[in-house]
Amino acid sequence: MKLISYSYNRQEHYGILTQQGIIDLTTRLGQQFPDLKSLISGGALKHAQSYSNERPDFTEEEINYLPLITHPNKILCVGMNYADKRLEFDQTDPAPTLFVRFADSQTGHKCPVIKPAITNEFDYEGELAVIIGKDGIHISEKDALSHVAGYSCYMDGSVRDWQHTWFTAGKNWPQTGGFGPCLTTTDEIPDPANLVISTYLNGNRVQHDNTSNLIHKIPELIAYISSFTALSAGDVIITGSPGGVGKKRIPPLFMKVGDCIEVEIEKIGRLTNFIVDETRCNK
Amino acid sequence: MKLISYSYNRQEHYGILTQQGIIDLTTRLGQQFPDLKSLISGGALKHAQSYSNERPDFTEEEINYLPLITHPNKILCVGMNYADKRLEFDQTDPAPTLFVRFADSQTGHKCPVIKPAITNEFDYEGELAVIIGKDGIHISEKDALSHVAGYSCYMDGSVRDWQHTWFTAGKNWPQTGGFGPCLTTTDEIPDPANLVISTYLNGNRVQHDNTSNLIHKIPELIAYISSFTALSAGDVIITGSPGGVGKKRIPPLFMKVGDCIEVEIEKIGRLTNFIVDETRCNK
Repeated sequence: MKLISYSYNRQEHYGILTQQGIIDLTTRLGQQFPDLKSLISGGALKHAQSYSNERPDFTEEEINYLPLITHPNKILCVGMNYADKRLEFDQTDPAPTLFVRFADSQTGHKCPVIKPAITNEFDYEGELAVIIGKDGIHISEKDALSHVAGYSCYMDGSVRDWQHTWFTAGKNWPQTGGFGPCLTTTDEIPDPANLVISTYLNGNRVQHDNTSNLIHKIPELIAYISSFTALSAGDVIITGSPGGVGKKRIPPLFMKVGDCIEVEIEKIGRLTNFIVDETRCNK
Repeated sequence: MKLISYSYNRQEHYGILTQQGIIDLTTRLGQQFPDLKSLISGGALKHAQSYSNERPDFTEEEINYLPLITHPNKILCVGMNYADKRLEFDQTDPAPTLFVRFADSQTGHKCPVIKPAITNEFDYEGELAVIIGKDGIHISEKDALSHVAGYSCYMDGSVRDWQHTWFTAGKNWPQTGGFGPCLTTTDEIPDPANLVISTYLNGNRVQHDNTSNLIHKIPELIAYISSFTALSAGDVIITGSPGGVGKKRIPPLFMKVGDCIEVEIEKIGRLTNFIVDETRCNK
């Protein structure tokens, strides 16, 4: 099952994405579960699936995508988690690199990504996002995947000249984190360690790898993170980007206003965003 | 005016701390403003002050302190912001060092601070906390202090062997961030750049400096942070710790179970916490 968050008539909705269209779940389950996060934390994914053969309510053209989880409690971002990327950034620390995104730095599928006016080093990073399905702390590697609701794509837009070694200022600009299009539930991805991941800038493939090459695998990441902080349903872990980012190319290749950036992951789909000028956006 | 958050009869309350006791504001204003954060975001600090001459409802012994802001939307932490500390950690990057704490890593005045079982490098950092009073993005240095509701003390308990250069895993263990005792409103601290700050471990002074020695002053920090992320009422900026931390002493001086750690700042008060064993706490 593929779940999405979207707005319809300026209201937040969520539903099931099918090839025939979108089955709205807000009208069916919204009183009990007002958003996708609460559906997940209410343990109601199986229940949602019972609607998956109903007639679609909307076409994709009728809705506007929202960030898949609109208000995650925690977004933990893993850096330097593919061998090629570690080489590019000369990273040798054996511990997972971890930083935090705030929820208001996100944007949805087919929505604008805002290039901050202040930077000429606005870089792409295509990543696999893990959406937590069940609360926990001190989760073992063995149990880790049972705490996952599903997977999605993330475009971790990065302001390189503000990134430093602590990441915070480089990774939290408004509408720089594309998140979607959908959450593919774990029944369709029993093994997240073998997914082809690619990033396309204006149609040209700029990153290409397989999640089998993640250095810290998803169970290890969940165990590591939950050793020091509780994870709860709707929390997001973005697992790091393959090599090929713009900063380390010769010459560098950064995102400019008007560009189209896409992240495609096997069994999930393709997240598409367009780069717009900060000064043209409503503040 | 000094404001506090506390629990009474297992309910979250907030009120005014006076020398005679605590004037409860939850019974007076709680319907409109359920917690201290909503009082601040509602612009009701002046209104709250109109109750400051009423008869106290509770003694300090009758209540249990909570983290001053129980659920901040964002907690931004500044590292390496006193000259002595920068020397100790060999930090030369001219940009403010910034990392994030999650709200569930906090604890209140006189509450336990939990030493993670996994570390022998549990260190203290006494810091001045800035509590944002008014929403904003792209705030100028000139306007910055008008966005502040008040100031408090923070004990940024740090697991040094998990800290790395990205801080996240070292700074987010449950109940490691002491926050309080009170918010002193800006009318009583018109100039936050001249406050004596001291940390005491078991009564011995281990850090001692003045906020006049902050490298990135509070207006600069607010301007820098709000250049890339919106700040909203109740957000917290902890401004960095003076030199003298345990990790850089010879021999090192870390916090052990049974220790008492205190952070005292002029015009605010003294935040007191006791170090307890992780394994003795309820999970």
